[in-house]
Amino acid sequence: MTSLNDLPLRDNLRGLVPYGAPQLHVPVALNVNENTHPIPEAVAHHIVASLARAVLTVNRYPDREFTELRESLANYLGHGLTAENIWAANGSNEVLQQVLQAFGGPGRTLLGFDPTYSMYSILASGTDTRWVAGERDADYELSADTAAAWVAKTQPDLVFLCSPNNPTGTPLALETIAAVYDATDGIVVVDEAYAEFGGAEAPTALSLLPGRERLVVSRTMSKAFAFAGARVGYLAADPAVTDALRLVRLPYHLSALTQAAATAALDHTAEMLAMVDDIRVQRDRIVTELRDLGYRPYRTGSNFVLFGGVEDPGATFTALLAEGVLIRDIGIPNHLRVSAGTEAETTAFLAAISRLGAPTVSRAE
Amino acid sequence: MTSLNDLPLRDNLRGLVPYGAPQLHVPVALNVNENTHPIPEAVAHHIVASLARAVLTVNRYPDREFTELRESLANYLGHGLTAENIWAANGSNEVLQQVLQAFGGPGRTLLGFDPTYSMYSILASGTDTRWVAGERDADYELSADTAAAWVAKTQPDLVFLCSPNNPTGTPLALETIAAVYDATDGIVVVDEAYAEFGGAEAPTALSLLPGRERLVVSRTMSKAFAFAGARVGYLAADPAVTDALRLVRLPYHLSALTQAAATAALDHTAEMLAMVDDIRVQRDRIVTELRDLGYRPYRTGSNFVLFGGVEDPGATFTALLAEGVLIRDIGIPNHLRVSAGTEAETTAFLAAISRLGAPTVSRAE
Repeated sequence: MTSLNDLPLRDNLRGLVPYGAPQLHVPVALNVNENTHPIPEAVAHHIVASLARAVLTVNRYPDREFTELRESLANYLGHGLTAENIWAANGSNEVLQQVLQAFGGPGRTLLGFDPTYSMYSILASGTDTRWVAGERDADYELSADTAAAWVAKTQPDLVFLCSPNNPTGTPLALETIAAVYDATDGIVVVDEAYAEFGGAEAPTALSLLPGRERLVVSRTMSKAFAFAGARVGYLAADPAVTDALRLVRLPYHLSALTQAAATAALDHTAEMLAMVDDIRVQRDRIVTELRDLGYRPYRTGSNFVLFGGVEDPGATFTALLAEGVLIRDIGIPNHLRVSAGTEAETTAFLAAISRLGAPTVSRAE
Repeated sequence: MTSLNDLPLRDNLRGLVPYGAPQLHVPVALNVNENTHPIPEAVAHHIVASLARAVLTVNRYPDREFTELRESLANYLGHGLTAENIWAANGSNEVLQQVLQAFGGPGRTLLGFDPTYSMYSILASGTDTRWVAGERDADYELSADTAAAWVAKTQPDLVFLCSPNNPTGTPLALETIAAVYDATDGIVVVDEAYAEFGGAEAPTALSLLPGRERLVVSRTMSKAFAFAGARVGYLAADPAVTDALRLVRLPYHLSALTQAAATAALDHTAEMLAMVDDIRVQRDRIVTELRDLGYRPYRTGSNFVLFGGVEDPGATFTALLAEGVLIRDIGIPNHLRVSAGTEAETTAFLAAISRLGAPTVSRAE
């Protein structure tokens, strides 16, 4: 049988394994920060009707400029943005890959701050961009001074800031983002995949866009819009940035079905954001109850909670899985990460972990 | 206003313009080799029902391995292929980009034979792979000797063979493909986007796959399955090749909607291939009637016809457009390309071009 090593694979891919959490079928899946609420029925009906219309002309190539979707996204984001400021692709992974194709590449460097979304370094590798991992302050916070010092030290061509940060949940202060922008001549991407879970009052880097033509704010419909299966990531930036992405995007990269489904979902912002409010309540409940149990949850502005104080994350992960509850071991010693689910799912997780007894790790971590 | 030149764009992108034919709204669009037949109504109903089911769980990430779709595609292709041999992505452009990400890149070379599908060189540039354009024999044919000599001379890491070739329509003999494979240690991709239009009896590189672990046959649902708007490209190869692509694919790159729609369409192969037969009749009619008018159509195994003998392609293009018929000027002097449409569309094209009078270019080209 032919193996990978028999093929003329690129050198930097040798020995790698594909990215991805296990896709297990369990009663309570809280491992990949999905929105566990199905699309509300009325919204689903509208989406299906919109898809049915799109199928009528699916023999034709889709609108390469996905104009209607860009208008809907601009309208949703507000902040004076128009369709000219908006770009979208098949998930924010593809959006970020396109940013690296346009502004990264051989001889160029991407700075991020570990621990952070693990796709960043993979996307860097896939575009032959050098990945540099900066360090955070205590409790995974990132101050303006720390971030700007890393920029000064590493002179990156791009900086990816994740806010709220995955897998820690930590929101970034706007001062940190502005300081990074001022410290570099490169592209600064703020990945706000989980922004809506900070609540309507939370600061967003969208407010920093005017006058900052190298600033990019990426978002996704996967989380707040319960659209992980539809793969719709997007960004807001100066129109010159979206022009640059037109040079690297594959023509017709967004299908007519994707455009139709996403545009329909964006007509129902109020219903979708009501789900977000429910999830925030469960997220806050997880923080409170884990703390009461003796774990050390971190400050979070997202739909998930990172918590320390876990003596043996592998053992806890397995014990929870045995009860039908799947969470995520993200490789930080003594830590685990859990997504906030529906009230019932969250109750199932909290009940299962409380049955494991009080954690025994306290200051050792 | 910020322009592209104010941004830290990659050097090899400076001065480029985005790829893509104009998306004009005209009564008869025969410019981008679409299948101009809408999906049959019964098939459309099944697709919509399948999409409606997918929307129910679209809050969850899709099956990262798109197992059901791969099984359906293997079953459709036959030739003893199984799901292990199949890979898919958002259009064959993405499939080919992934092949280059896995096997191309800095320091590596891709050989193709001009004129050919213009995305190949763009995909090479986007993955920092060096593009080398080999030359064809007379009438855009490509013999085994010519192709193998180019491989020997250029020592490429990958060879892309388009069969039938876009924009010329020329099908490749299997001997040419086998000779190229034998002449290289690299990856050989046969892009069979238009294969179905050769008819059931036409040779396919799928028959060459056994024992050739570096051979890749790419296909698309855009053409025969009238699915350009859904963006489904795929390939068949040794399972080691699909393992390599798992290292470079973005996780969850194929949406749940794409998977549902494509799997449903593949349940209706007979109806879809009946449309292909109709299109072949119109294609052959274009060849015959253009020749009768005095143009020089080329041998074609695809759903389009390249024809020479056009004194001023820009003028003919514009004159046809004024009558609501959009075809393609692909930049070859004295040539134009037209897609075969429905019977009515084909009649509209032939009537419009015949009204322009007999062509005046004969041997000068």
